Amino acid sequence: MKEVVDYLKANQDRFLEELAEFIKIPSISAHADRRKDISKAAKFTEKQLKAAGLKNVKQYPTKGNPVVYGEWMGAKGAPTILVYGHYDVQPVEPLEKWKTDPFEMTIKGGKMFGRGTSDDKGQVFIHFKVIEAYLKTVKKLPVNIKVIVEGEEEVGSTNLVDFIKKHRALLKSDTILISDTNMIGKTKPSITYGLRGLTYLEVSVKSLSGDQHSGTFGGGVANPIQVLSELLVKCKDPKTSKVKIPGFYSDVVPLSRKERNELAKIPHDDAMYAKNLGAVSTFGEKGYSTIERTGARPTFEINGIWGGHTGAGVKTVLPAEAHAKVSMRLVANQDPDKIAKAFKDYIKDITPDTVKVDVKLYDNNGYAALTPLTADGMKAASTAIKKVFKKDPFFTREGGSIPVVADFQHLLGVDAILLGFGLPDDNLHAPNEKMDISQFRNGMQTTVHFLEEYAKMKSAG
Amino acid sequence: MKEVVDYLKANQDRFLEELAEFIKIPSISAHADRRKDISKAAKFTEKQLKAAGLKNVKQYPTKGNPVVYGEWMGAKGAPTILVYGHYDVQPVEPLEKWKTDPFEMTIKGGKMFGRGTSDDKGQVFIHFKVIEAYLKTVKKLPVNIKVIVEGEEEVGSTNLVDFIKKHRALLKSDTILISDTNMIGKTKPSITYGLRGLTYLEVSVKSLSGDQHSGTFGGGVANPIQVLSELLVKCKDPKTSKVKIPGFYSDVVPLSRKERNELAKIPHDDAMYAKNLGAVSTFGEKGYSTIERTGARPTFEINGIWGGHTGAGVKTVLPAEAHAKVSMRLVANQDPDKIAKAFKDYIKDITPDTVKVDVKLYDNNGYAALTPLTADGMKAASTAIKKVFKKDPFFTREGGSIPVVADFQHLLGVDAILLGFGLPDDNLHAPNEKMDISQFRNGMQTTVHFLEEYAKMKSAG
Repeated sequence: MKEVVDYLKANQDRFLEELAEFIKIPSISAHADRRKDISKAAKFTEKQLKAAGLKNVKQYPTKGNPVVYGEWMGAKGAPTILVYGHYDVQPVEPLEKWKTDPFEMTIKGGKMFGRGTSDDKGQVFIHFKVIEAYLKTVKKLPVNIKVIVEGEEEVGSTNLVDFIKKHRALLKSDTILISDTNMIGKTKPSITYGLRGLTYLEVSVKSLSGDQHSGTFGGGVANPIQVLSELLVKCKDPKTSKVKIPGFYSDVVPLSRKERNELAKIPHDDAMYAKNLGAVSTFGEKGYSTIERTGARPTFEINGIWGGHTGAGVKTVLPAEAHAKVSMRLVANQDPDKIAKAFKDYIKDITPDTVKVDVKLYDNNGYAALTPLTADGMKAASTAIKKVFKKDPFFTREGGSIPVVADFQHLLGVDAILLGFGLPDDNLHAPNEKMDISQFRNGMQTTVHFLEEYAKMKSAG
Repeated sequence: MKEVVDYLKANQDRFLEELAEFIKIPSISAHADRRKDISKAAKFTEKQLKAAGLKNVKQYPTKGNPVVYGEWMGAKGAPTILVYGHYDVQPVEPLEKWKTDPFEMTIKGGKMFGRGTSDDKGQVFIHFKVIEAYLKTVKKLPVNIKVIVEGEEEVGSTNLVDFIKKHRALLKSDTILISDTNMIGKTKPSITYGLRGLTYLEVSVKSLSGDQHSGTFGGGVANPIQVLSELLVKCKDPKTSKVKIPGFYSDVVPLSRKERNELAKIPHDDAMYAKNLGAVSTFGEKGYSTIERTGARPTFEINGIWGGHTGAGVKTVLPAEAHAKVSMRLVANQDPDKIAKAFKDYIKDITPDTVKVDVKLYDNNGYAALTPLTADGMKAASTAIKKVFKKDPFFTREGGSIPVVADFQHLLGVDAILLGFGLPDDNLHAPNEKMDISQFRNGMQTTVHFLEEYAKMKSAG
């Protein structure tokens, strides 16, 4: 193990150079005009897996972006770990808010800035390099490893489910390892045992066949922005933040007293939390703590809105239409399809008959996921963290969604271990995304220990 | 007069070619990067006034865009008419909704399409050409004429008031003639005797210092789009469309029974009106007709809204801020500054303390205007219309605003005659703006008769 660790230390500079090449590729899956960059990123991933020493490396085409696969099955009798990550990234708008070029990785104050540094190119790179370190030094891994890196995570992993269904044998494994989440802090390591589910929709209100003069026609017909605002306000109580869509909470399993106690242990300061976000104060569902609101309770959020004149200066227009993108984060036992339908029905129900409304469901539906704290992988991860970070990890539920985690658990029948090395201030999905270099390095060390621990645990068990 | 009329007919093709050159200049006053085009449009106007035979033609610089002036003072003892128009145009977004290039005048089905064809390049051109026809044929006009064409009408005529104040003597006149409004229909001529006032503001709600991941932070802090929607919904009752800003209606002079009777004469069919707009139905302030709602009653309209992810696809962002542009149309006796202040105070009052709010007032405040039906100019206009359109005009109040009309009346102490030749389907301030060629031609004929009638009336009086 020492050779592996030494190799990782000795090659850090090269790793950062290679990661910068990866970041340079604007593989934004949400933008149809980035197909070439998606291909480039898939090819780059393929090269990395080959360079790491994996076998049977290839791209599997899907209806969307390709899945890159590679494996090393030389550990006879040892367990098999399926490593999952993604090579696609979020859009970068608003560009003017970036302090550096999102696609030129910039190192400053021990941090790597750039789109994908934390989500997920930087984190999946940890696995590439740990595998490389083993296979270049001791020529073997303590476990068998299968790696899949997909290109549609940021648009809901639409085609990955099909891929998993088709390749159950190929993907057979004892546990899944994913580094695509955060820790509480550098000195407060944590492991995520829960993820929220997601449903993402777009509401369009149309009142006229074309934009009109707001003086000539204003007051004579419904204003679509006004109506859209009315609809949105009816989705969430302004005072209690309770979602008002009928049936929204019906399937939610209430948080147990025990779990609330566990979550209460997580270090958290509302005032500091608000300050770090530049917010006046925290705000959310009545009766729950911020930790619970953001991890263990379902939410309704408006992700975008637009209509009428959004440019500079004055335009006295009565707009023809208005749109909003909304998403709901779900918790275990909520069915995303059912929730999406409830939302559609509700919107149609409350829309006044002066306008037309349309609700479009994006292909981003996903169930919430929960991994038992007693799973072998959780124990191995916990030990690995303690060895590197010198502290017992906290166990957290993350508010974000990786829908494929629930799909993996469901389709392959194994647990997913979310061993993420991001930090809460990484600006995921936002301008100035970054990853701390120390987390990148500790992530590699932790992953080495995880593989060793998991192999030991399984051979003992 | 026959020579004048013959000249106008004989030169129609050339007039359209010259107008097309005018349309070609994208003189969008709302966009700071169009300064050069503003200059070009001012220069073009200057050339037109010179070519028409006016004297003392020159550009007067202002703090903003120049005012172009020209005069012909050769009608000793005759009254003086001040003609006003503007060479600036509205923005053209959304460009994709235009069926033709907005800056390439396209003639189709007897209509000229292009930005400014109706508002106001096409209409001010009527005056250029009528003056030219007189001065090229009979070498004189029946009245003295002063022409001012400004370049900031679409951004509130901010600097024109200063110009008027500075040049009261230069602008001394007996009445003002403006062609910048609509008629009810080609066979339903009308004269506008009232215009609504305007105040235009922007509301910005800020909750975070930067965009964040809606999964990680969603539910923990206020969503600025949600809050903005709540604020907007509190400005207007969804059922009655009554504006809920305290004091909004305080200074409104109620419509008299007599005026409501007059307005009820205007041909109007709610179902047809809605159909023409592509609307499901009309909608507006409870207790008033559509004619009253759009012309004689004040309104609150949202002109634009934006925040978060407004591009293609999915982005699970919790936005840092959200913005809306709103305007209120005012009626006689409402003070735009007072209304703007009432709005600002109200928004600050109803904003929850989880976010920061900012309300910015644009320089577009303007009073409503009313011209007595008994004014000499109104009578001359009425006779002129009857001669050309073979029908008595209706008298209407227009919902739009030309703030400078109220300023003219106030500062120069004379009435403004709004002899407009646009039509309700001209798509002002919207994609596919057009002007009917027949209205352009009849506009010239009507203007000739107006000048003759006004001269007669004044010499008789």
